[in-house]
Amino acid sequence: MTQRIRQIMIILLVIIFTASCSAGSDIDPLPSWRAGATRASIINFVEAVSDPQHADYVAAEERIAVFDNDGTLWSEQPLYFQLYYALARVEQRAQNDSEWAEQEPFRTALLGDRNEILALGTEGLVKLILTTHSGMTNTEFRQTVADWMSTATHPTTDRAFSQMIYQPMLELLNYLRANDFRVYIVSGGGVEFMRVWAEDVYGVPPQNAIGSNLGIQFERTDAGPVLRRTPEIDFINDGPGKPVGIQRAIGRRPIFAFGNSDGDLQMLQWAVAGETPGFAGIVHHTDGDREWAYDRESHVGRLDKALDEAGQRGWTVVDMKADWAIIHPVKTN
Amino acid sequence: MTQRIRQIMIILLVIIFTASCSAGSDIDPLPSWRAGATRASIINFVEAVSDPQHADYVAAEERIAVFDNDGTLWSEQPLYFQLYYALARVEQRAQNDSEWAEQEPFRTALLGDRNEILALGTEGLVKLILTTHSGMTNTEFRQTVADWMSTATHPTTDRAFSQMIYQPMLELLNYLRANDFRVYIVSGGGVEFMRVWAEDVYGVPPQNAIGSNLGIQFERTDAGPVLRRTPEIDFINDGPGKPVGIQRAIGRRPIFAFGNSDGDLQMLQWAVAGETPGFAGIVHHTDGDREWAYDRESHVGRLDKALDEAGQRGWTVVDMKADWAIIHPVKTN
Repeated sequence: MTQRIRQIMIILLVIIFTASCSAGSDIDPLPSWRAGATRASIINFVEAVSDPQHADYVAAEERIAVFDNDGTLWSEQPLYFQLYYALARVEQRAQNDSEWAEQEPFRTALLGDRNEILALGTEGLVKLILTTHSGMTNTEFRQTVADWMSTATHPTTDRAFSQMIYQPMLELLNYLRANDFRVYIVSGGGVEFMRVWAEDVYGVPPQNAIGSNLGIQFERTDAGPVLRRTPEIDFINDGPGKPVGIQRAIGRRPIFAFGNSDGDLQMLQWAVAGETPGFAGIVHHTDGDREWAYDRESHVGRLDKALDEAGQRGWTVVDMKADWAIIHPVKTN
Repeated sequence: MTQRIRQIMIILLVIIFTASCSAGSDIDPLPSWRAGATRASIINFVEAVSDPQHADYVAAEERIAVFDNDGTLWSEQPLYFQLYYALARVEQRAQNDSEWAEQEPFRTALLGDRNEILALGTEGLVKLILTTHSGMTNTEFRQTVADWMSTATHPTTDRAFSQMIYQPMLELLNYLRANDFRVYIVSGGGVEFMRVWAEDVYGVPPQNAIGSNLGIQFERTDAGPVLRRTPEIDFINDGPGKPVGIQRAIGRRPIFAFGNSDGDLQMLQWAVAGETPGFAGIVHHTDGDREWAYDRESHVGRLDKALDEAGQRGWTVVDMKADWAIIHPVKTN
């Protein structure tokens, strides 16, 4: 190629690039968020901290955003989705071991009644989780989660669980990343459970997932070393555990946090307690038609103290019914 | 500016950029590494996994490199440097509390004799660490570490501790990052201790530091929430704990690992146990003139089992005396 043709091609590329950039700035980054105070509070915050000329500017390396998962990025009704994975594992084992299936809490789990399962209480639910989530290597565990995610469907909507995510929140994650935020999931759910699919579904890579975890043990086997999952709770990433989990994994305070329940309260308090500006947001489940409506009295995702504090401190509260034009993405499965 | 001038400027910029790229490929990425098998093993591995045409190619997101800190990225003699921080804290408190200073292990610590300090054993050293590293908020702790790092000097070289790092390893970290590796520190030392200075000194940001840690507790105070350091060991990131710490923080297996002692053995085993190619490297301290010479019998940084396994498995063993043209950077303090 002659020098002259090369120059012309470069100029053309530059023109195309410049044109696409200007077009980009006209695209609405949050099309599923209806105009109003909620949407404005998000955009105002992000624009301020990303603008070097603004008094609230925050350097990119400090732009850390944390999101609860259950009820904040995807639905959590009628039961936390990870519990459906546990129930599926119980069913699988019960097929080969009918004696085991008669013992509690497995007997109740197999009956499949939501209220009876919740009535198992902490002790029963912990036993259900430990039994179904430990014993195997981490690689084996990941495979069972991947298999389940690719075939299981939600009991009332019949959607894949990965289609029970919130379209407006997907847009928010992308909008933050486009403004040089590092986006983390900070969930009470199991970190290894989320890591299997969070990158595909949310664009959140494994090292940006923070969650509860069981013990892990390094073991040498004839086939080489493995990490085995042990039946003990190592860390509960919920409530006051969330700022702790954030500090252990990131080592910096987030400036942007979104949750939906009292289990997120301390994370929200932490995000707005720094010298830099901070944003605290809550998803309020107000749409019984398109999703579920629940808050102060719910057994799953109870939102009570955090809702009071949000009101007192002027945090952003998403009214799902009013603020979100779309809830779940257009169905693809 | 007219369109024509703009076009010329763009062409000039492209020419300058192209020229600097070609120049870049001629610059030796590892100038402090002498030519030989060690250097070649590193470059061959990095070039292979970074080359999409190569059979050993590894996608960028899987290019995770982990480095031990003490004895691998900086010196660790005559005592681990974090112990000098602990001793300085003991001295500070002893000035105001002479009764406390008479109790063990503080009395021995204040005498400052290396062998007597090591003879305190695990129980004494743990008490020394817990006492000096807990009770305060994490912010307060960080400040004391920053103050110490900016003034303390090494007992035999009189250099700042941040100048006791290895120049060849700095070059290796940069070389890996230039080839799209994500570089992590995976140390038995305290994660919050390292986070204070690791970004300035190694270019490793807080979220890429993995280490041992004490408890952290979320606490509400009149001045707002704080994270307080509690006097209990939460996690020892050493030996079989290293692959566990890596899994908890990153969620992926590294493909490149460097250590210098038996405490790194399981991390090295883990890095080469995957389906993708893996690199395991050991820094062997062989230079008693320029640094320290020690291995199988040393109380600090004992290298025995890992040296045997490296020989059996053909891992890369750096002969510090022969392979490194420079050890510490040119003195700047």
